Amino acid sequence: MGIPFELLKTSAAGGRRARLHLPHQTVETPVFMPVGTQGTVKAVPQETLEVLGAQIILGNTYHLYLRPGHEAIRRMGGLHKFISWPRALLTDSGGFQVFSLNQLRKVTDDGVRFRSHLDGSSHFFTAEHSIDVQIALGADIVMSFDECTEYPASRQRAEESLRLTMAWARRSLDHFRANRHLVPWSNPKDCCGVPPVPRTWGPGSNDRSQSLFGIIQGGMYTDLRRQCAEQLVAMDFDGYAIGGLSVGEPRELTLEIIAETLPLLPKDKPRYVMGVGYPDEIEQYARMGVDMMDCVLPTRAARHGLLFTSQGRLNIKNKQYAEDQSPPDPACDCMVCRRYSRAYLRHLMQAGEALSGTLNTIHNLAFYLGIMQRVRASLESAPAPSES
Amino acid sequence: MGIPFELLKTSAAGGRRARLHLPHQTVETPVFMPVGTQGTVKAVPQETLEVLGAQIILGNTYHLYLRPGHEAIRRMGGLHKFISWPRALLTDSGGFQVFSLNQLRKVTDDGVRFRSHLDGSSHFFTAEHSIDVQIALGADIVMSFDECTEYPASRQRAEESLRLTMAWARRSLDHFRANRHLVPWSNPKDCCGVPPVPRTWGPGSNDRSQSLFGIIQGGMYTDLRRQCAEQLVAMDFDGYAIGGLSVGEPRELTLEIIAETLPLLPKDKPRYVMGVGYPDEIEQYARMGVDMMDCVLPTRAARHGLLFTSQGRLNIKNKQYAEDQSPPDPACDCMVCRRYSRAYLRHLMQAGEALSGTLNTIHNLAFYLGIMQRVRASLESAPAPSES
Repeated sequence: MGIPFELLKTSAAGGRRARLHLPHQTVETPVFMPVGTQGTVKAVPQETLEVLGAQIILGNTYHLYLRPGHEAIRRMGGLHKFISWPRALLTDSGGFQVFSLNQLRKVTDDGVRFRSHLDGSSHFFTAEHSIDVQIALGADIVMSFDECTEYPASRQRAEESLRLTMAWARRSLDHFRANRHLVPWSNPKDCCGVPPVPRTWGPGSNDRSQSLFGIIQGGMYTDLRRQCAEQLVAMDFDGYAIGGLSVGEPRELTLEIIAETLPLLPKDKPRYVMGVGYPDEIEQYARMGVDMMDCVLPTRAARHGLLFTSQGRLNIKNKQYAEDQSPPDPACDCMVCRRYSRAYLRHLMQAGEALSGTLNTIHNLAFYLGIMQRVRASLESAPAPSES
Repeated sequence: MGIPFELLKTSAAGGRRARLHLPHQTVETPVFMPVGTQGTVKAVPQETLEVLGAQIILGNTYHLYLRPGHEAIRRMGGLHKFISWPRALLTDSGGFQVFSLNQLRKVTDDGVRFRSHLDGSSHFFTAEHSIDVQIALGADIVMSFDECTEYPASRQRAEESLRLTMAWARRSLDHFRANRHLVPWSNPKDCCGVPPVPRTWGPGSNDRSQSLFGIIQGGMYTDLRRQCAEQLVAMDFDGYAIGGLSVGEPRELTLEIIAETLPLLPKDKPRYVMGVGYPDEIEQYARMGVDMMDCVLPTRAARHGLLFTSQGRLNIKNKQYAEDQSPPDPACDCMVCRRYSRAYLRHLMQAGEALSGTLNTIHNLAFYLGIMQRVRASLESAPAPSES
C-alpha cells in the first residue's frame, strides 16, 4: 500500500535523502514546496517554477473550493490540468483556512460551519467533504481534515481539539479509501495537453493514484503529540504531517515538538512539517529528518520587499539600495540575480510595479529551493551512520 | 548624419520594409514598440520581452525623471543598464505626461511648470531640460519637446500650440547636438553586465550615439501639419514622428492626417506615429508607410482582461469562459496560448491574482508583435511598385 518512498540515505543526525514517487513527479527529498493558494504561486508563471526546479507545489482546498469551485475543476480534469502544472501537487484539507479566515465558524463533532471570506455565504465542511473536494482537485497528495490547535491552548482545549482531529482523521481515511478512484485523471501525463483517458483502476487499487497524509496535532503537549502519532500510524496513512506549528510559539518549542515527534513515525513513509519556516529552519529540520516542508514566507515576504540572501535578510525598499548595482544576492545565480540589480528591484517596489512581486518572489523561491538542493547533496555525500 | 535607415523594399501602397540600425539593436521595421512607462513593460520580465521578439521598448521621461530620477539613472550607466534591457529604447519628451497628468500646469514660451503627480512638488520643463533628461536616460532614440495639441482645438489654439512646438523643436535639436556626447554609455554592448568604458567620441560625432526625432503637431488642420512637417524636415532630424493623434478624434481623421503627412516626409528616414492603436490600425498604418508605432493599448487592456485575438476581442472576465479549456487564441502560438486555458486566465482575473496581468499582457504583446511580423513578411514578398 501507499506511494513508493525510496529512502536512499540517512545521516547520523537523522536527515533522510529519499525519493517520493508521486503520479506526476518523482520528488527528490528533502523538498521545499512553494505555496500556490489559488492555483498560482503568486506572481510567478508555471514555466518559471519549472525553471526554478520546483518539484511540487501546494494548492489551498478552501480557496479553490470557493473559487472557481472543485466541481468546475473536476469537470476540467483536475487542478494539474486547470493550472497547467505537470509536476506534483499537494492540497491541504481546508481546515487551516476555515479556522484562520473565519471569525464566525461553528465547530461540532460533525464538522465546521463557516462563512466565505469572499461573499459571506454559509458553508459546511466535514472530513468527508474535505476529501471529496480534494479528490475532485486531484492533487498527488491530499491531507486529512484536522483542527489546527491555536497557540497558546490549555491542556483541556488541546485534548478536545485533538479528539476532533483524531475522529476526522479516521473518517478522512475511510472516505478516501472508498472514493479515491473518483480522481479526475488516470494517466498523469495527460494533465497538460490531451484530455484524460478513462481510469483503468477501481476502489482499493493503489495504482498511481492520490495519497493521503495524516496530520499530527496535540498543541505543545508532547504526550498528546505522541498519542496522536501512535494512533495515526496505526491507521496506516501514506505519509505523516506534523501540523499546528508556526502558530506563534517560540522557535525552541517548534524544534522540540518536531524532535519529539519524528522518532514516532515509520521510517518508510514521508514526513511533512506544515507551514515552516525561515531559511535556517527549513535547513535545520531537513537535517533532522523532515522530508517535506511548505511555507508562504518566501513568497509573501517577497511581495513586501523582503529578500532572503546568503548574506541575510535584505529589505529592498531601503534607501541604501537606491543606486546599488549589485545583484540582490551576489552568491546566487538565479535568473533575477544574474540580470537585475538591487537598485532596479527597489525602483520597481517604490513605483508599485507588478514586476516587483514577480522578480522578488523568483529570487526568494530560488533561495529556498537552493537550500534544499544543497541539503540533499550534503545528505548524499554524508557518511552512513554507524550502527549503535 | 543620422542613424542608418536601410530601406529594403517599398510596396505599391507605400508600405516600407526597412532596418533601423540603432546602437543597441538593429530594428526590423515596421515595428510595434511596447510601452515601459516606469522602466518596465508592466508585469512582464525583460527575459520574456526578448522571447516575444520585442526589439525596442519605450520609457517615459516624465515618470523616470520623477522616480527614480534621471541623474540616478545616469550615474548607473543609463536606462538600458538600469533596467537590464540590451535591445533598443526610445524615450518620449515628457511633454505628453506633463500635459495629460497635470491640471495645474503653466505654459510659457520658455517651458512648462507643473506639479508632480506623486508628491505635488513643483517642476519646470524646458526643451533643453527634456533633452538633458533624455540624454541622461540614454535611450537609442529621444524625442523633441513638444506640446500635444488637445482635441478638439480651435484653429487659433492649434496655431498657438504649433508655434510652441516649432520653437521647442529648434531648441531641442540645438541642445541635443551640443550635448549628445554626454550620453552615459559608449559601447552599447556594455549596458547589461560590465560597466561602461569611457566614451571615445565628442560633440558633433554621429558615432553610434543617440538619435533625435522631431514631432509633427498641428491638430487636425492639414495645412498646419504640412507647415510643421516642412519646417521640421528642413531642420534635418534623424526621424519624424506624427504626434497629437489618438487624442479622441474619430478614426477617419487619424487616418486622414497620417495619409496627408506621410508624403511630406523624407523617404530615407524613419516615420513614427505615436500612441496608436488597435490591431487593425497598426496593420493599416504600417501598410501605408509608417515604420514605428507605440501604444499602451495591448498592455493596459490586458490588465483589464481584454485580449486581442485572431477571432476579435475577448473579455476574459466573461462567465462564458469559466470552463472554457481552449487557449485564449487558438490561432496563436505564444507561450500563453500554448499552455493556459481561457478558464484559467478567467480564474486568475476573478481571483485578483498578479499572474493574470502577466499572462494577459504576454498574449496581447505576442499578438501585436505578430501582426508586425506578418506585415514585414508580406512587405518583403510584395512585388515592387511599377514606376509611374
